[in-house]
Amino acid sequence: MKIALLLTGNELMTGDTVDSNSAMIAQSLAVQGFDVAHKVTVGDDMDLIVAELDKLAAIYPAIIINGGLGPTVDDLTSEALSLLTGEPLVENAQALAHVNEWCERRGVAANAANLKQTLLPASATVLANPVGSAVGITLRFRDCVLLCTPGVPPELAAMLEGSVLSALQLGFPDATARLVRRLKLFGMGESALQQIIADQCPHWPSEVVVGFRAGVPLLELKLEIEDEAHLSLRDQCEEELRQVVGDFIVGENDDTLGAIVIDLLQQQTKQLTLAESCTGGMIASNITAVSGASSVFGVGFVSYSNAVKASVLGVDSTLIEQHGAVSEPVVRAMAEGALERSSAHCVIAVSGVAGPDGGTDDKPVGSVWVAWGGVEHINTHLFHYPVGRKMFQTLVSALALDLLRRYLLGSTTVPNYYQRKRSK
Amino acid sequence: MKIALLLTGNELMTGDTVDSNSAMIAQSLAVQGFDVAHKVTVGDDMDLIVAELDKLAAIYPAIIINGGLGPTVDDLTSEALSLLTGEPLVENAQALAHVNEWCERRGVAANAANLKQTLLPASATVLANPVGSAVGITLRFRDCVLLCTPGVPPELAAMLEGSVLSALQLGFPDATARLVRRLKLFGMGESALQQIIADQCPHWPSEVVVGFRAGVPLLELKLEIEDEAHLSLRDQCEEELRQVVGDFIVGENDDTLGAIVIDLLQQQTKQLTLAESCTGGMIASNITAVSGASSVFGVGFVSYSNAVKASVLGVDSTLIEQHGAVSEPVVRAMAEGALERSSAHCVIAVSGVAGPDGGTDDKPVGSVWVAWGGVEHINTHLFHYPVGRKMFQTLVSALALDLLRRYLLGSTTVPNYYQRKRSK
Repeated sequence: MKIALLLTGNELMTGDTVDSNSAMIAQSLAVQGFDVAHKVTVGDDMDLIVAELDKLAAIYPAIIINGGLGPTVDDLTSEALSLLTGEPLVENAQALAHVNEWCERRGVAANAANLKQTLLPASATVLANPVGSAVGITLRFRDCVLLCTPGVPPELAAMLEGSVLSALQLGFPDATARLVRRLKLFGMGESALQQIIADQCPHWPSEVVVGFRAGVPLLELKLEIEDEAHLSLRDQCEEELRQVVGDFIVGENDDTLGAIVIDLLQQQTKQLTLAESCTGGMIASNITAVSGASSVFGVGFVSYSNAVKASVLGVDSTLIEQHGAVSEPVVRAMAEGALERSSAHCVIAVSGVAGPDGGTDDKPVGSVWVAWGGVEHINTHLFHYPVGRKMFQTLVSALALDLLRRYLLGSTTVPNYYQRKRSK
Repeated sequence: MKIALLLTGNELMTGDTVDSNSAMIAQSLAVQGFDVAHKVTVGDDMDLIVAELDKLAAIYPAIIINGGLGPTVDDLTSEALSLLTGEPLVENAQALAHVNEWCERRGVAANAANLKQTLLPASATVLANPVGSAVGITLRFRDCVLLCTPGVPPELAAMLEGSVLSALQLGFPDATARLVRRLKLFGMGESALQQIIADQCPHWPSEVVVGFRAGVPLLELKLEIEDEAHLSLRDQCEEELRQVVGDFIVGENDDTLGAIVIDLLQQQTKQLTLAESCTGGMIASNITAVSGASSVFGVGFVSYSNAVKASVLGVDSTLIEQHGAVSEPVVRAMAEGALERSSAHCVIAVSGVAGPDGGTDDKPVGSVWVAWGGVEHINTHLFHYPVGRKMFQTLVSALALDLLRRYLLGSTTVPNYYQRKRSK
């Protein structure tokens, strides 16, 4: 079923905000059979908002409106609906209860701005927002169902799978869900994977549609079918894929590398420790982002300076003088030092040049030594990713976690991530 | 001057691609006085593209069209222009020369797909593309100037500041550039700040337009004027704001709390160390995200378990037994331990309950003790933010950095972040 999307907000027009909401909306709803066919974005401009709603409502059976539900004067959605429908704004009891409860939890009293969010068109029904102070709104205008959602991404995310989808399914019971299987891969790009499927899976059935969503650091591969009758065909495709690129598939759906590594450590009742230089705490942060991390992670060291590598981790300072901090002997010594000081069973250590400064001819920006493994054996390898500081830190953190994942699964080889020429 | 933007491409509708082009276009052109007032996105659907161009051209003096210039069958822009204007597609000599030269440089012969890109509406003028094989196109339709740009971001970037802007400025010599001042605040929400401006700055001049952009963890406040003659008025407004909420203003433009704290530490030639429990490395990661962090940051400890707080940071384990890990004595001892082990001058330590598990009646989820200061004096305070694990870690990391920022600026009080009731 084709639906429309109206996004509002000056920040979307000025380019101050890159709109990631509409991708989130499209992906969530497409799975359930609702396809965004038309997307209009306007600033906080009442006339334009009302005019566009009027136009889109004449064409589409449903419009998702995103943004403009907040407490400030430039949040216009509720008033726009009132102008569009001719309904007065009235205090909505459910919205008021939500705002009061939200304020109470934060230990503040509802102010005038908060209370503005409780004034809704008379016929509006509230869409529950489990995260923020603004409730969502739905109402019918002529033959069109309007569904208003907040612009704050975590609030939108929480509502999409919940109240928004329920309201859509209630209004349009005939929309048929697509059956999508989502696999997450690390270390392989979209075009490389597409080429591999084209070359190595020549008899791919047309019933199983392949889609990609390039994320950082994980690539999502979608296998989509329209009919339950094709489930076994999809399973065969997945099996074929696993034979070709199975070791790059790290998980599915919302899995993160941190969560997957924690699962494996829990299964093997092992503890992890970290010695991070160039990733500066990001690996620890990826691990501790997961609830339950404390069961497998006791301590991590962010050893950013050379002096600290010696004083805190016990790295022999002559090793640093002889080989430099970005070297195999030093990253190995960091890993050993972290293991000794933590009584952990497994370890990741990284030492590299994140840039933009600090590169040399011998160790250019983007070089990184990674050590990973356990008390019985520590592996080391040199990688080179001159991709800018932020991306370098993100990529190396993920790569190090993936190497540990493979180690915990018993793999002994270093994969050819992103099909690069190997570092020597 | 208000202009419109039409984006085309199925990948923008399915959410497989997050549209960053329109932010790039808006930001490049706004500075020069061209504001995107209306943005429409549709798939590769000829009827929809032509219909939307027809509608937008009736309202706006210029439309930027993005996407659909490539060599494949789903690249429809040139043909859509032909249908819109009634002009036949003819081989354009300039486009042909560009394609031939582009192929020549790559040592390949132009194929049919390349040559499709040289067929343009008869009245079209070429917009130079210094990067890719597709040329841009501009032509006039009724009273509207249409400018077609490629969807590939590096090609678009190269053309925006070049041929596209030139064509716009040639067509609209009266457009005037705009002046925006961006301030960054921490610890205050959008609605609270708006209320403060309304209450405490009653004579705010209409020439200085206030805008907000709610970010996590920083709030952006924009002060915008249209005329250089109002610069001193804007400066007065900023001065007035600083008198009212000055201590919440942490920086401007692209400043981050990490970068601001590093600047202050560099100015005072001080070194920082960290002892993180519930933030799990995120404070370290925020610091080391900034190039040059190594000049002020040598080591951070992620001391996630109680045993490690004792073994690695030297926290007296009887303190943990008596008061619990989330307590004033323990967070203070963590800070002292980190200072001793690092020889740093300044420190942040945090110990809290990120949740969703681990809360008690006494220390509910969201409780966090923060210690900050220097060797001469360590401050401590209990905060409570039951906002979900991810948001808690993000917020507490920022709050701790802001407390250190205030300490380095000589402030001795704990601010009332987000206007909460104080913890006892």
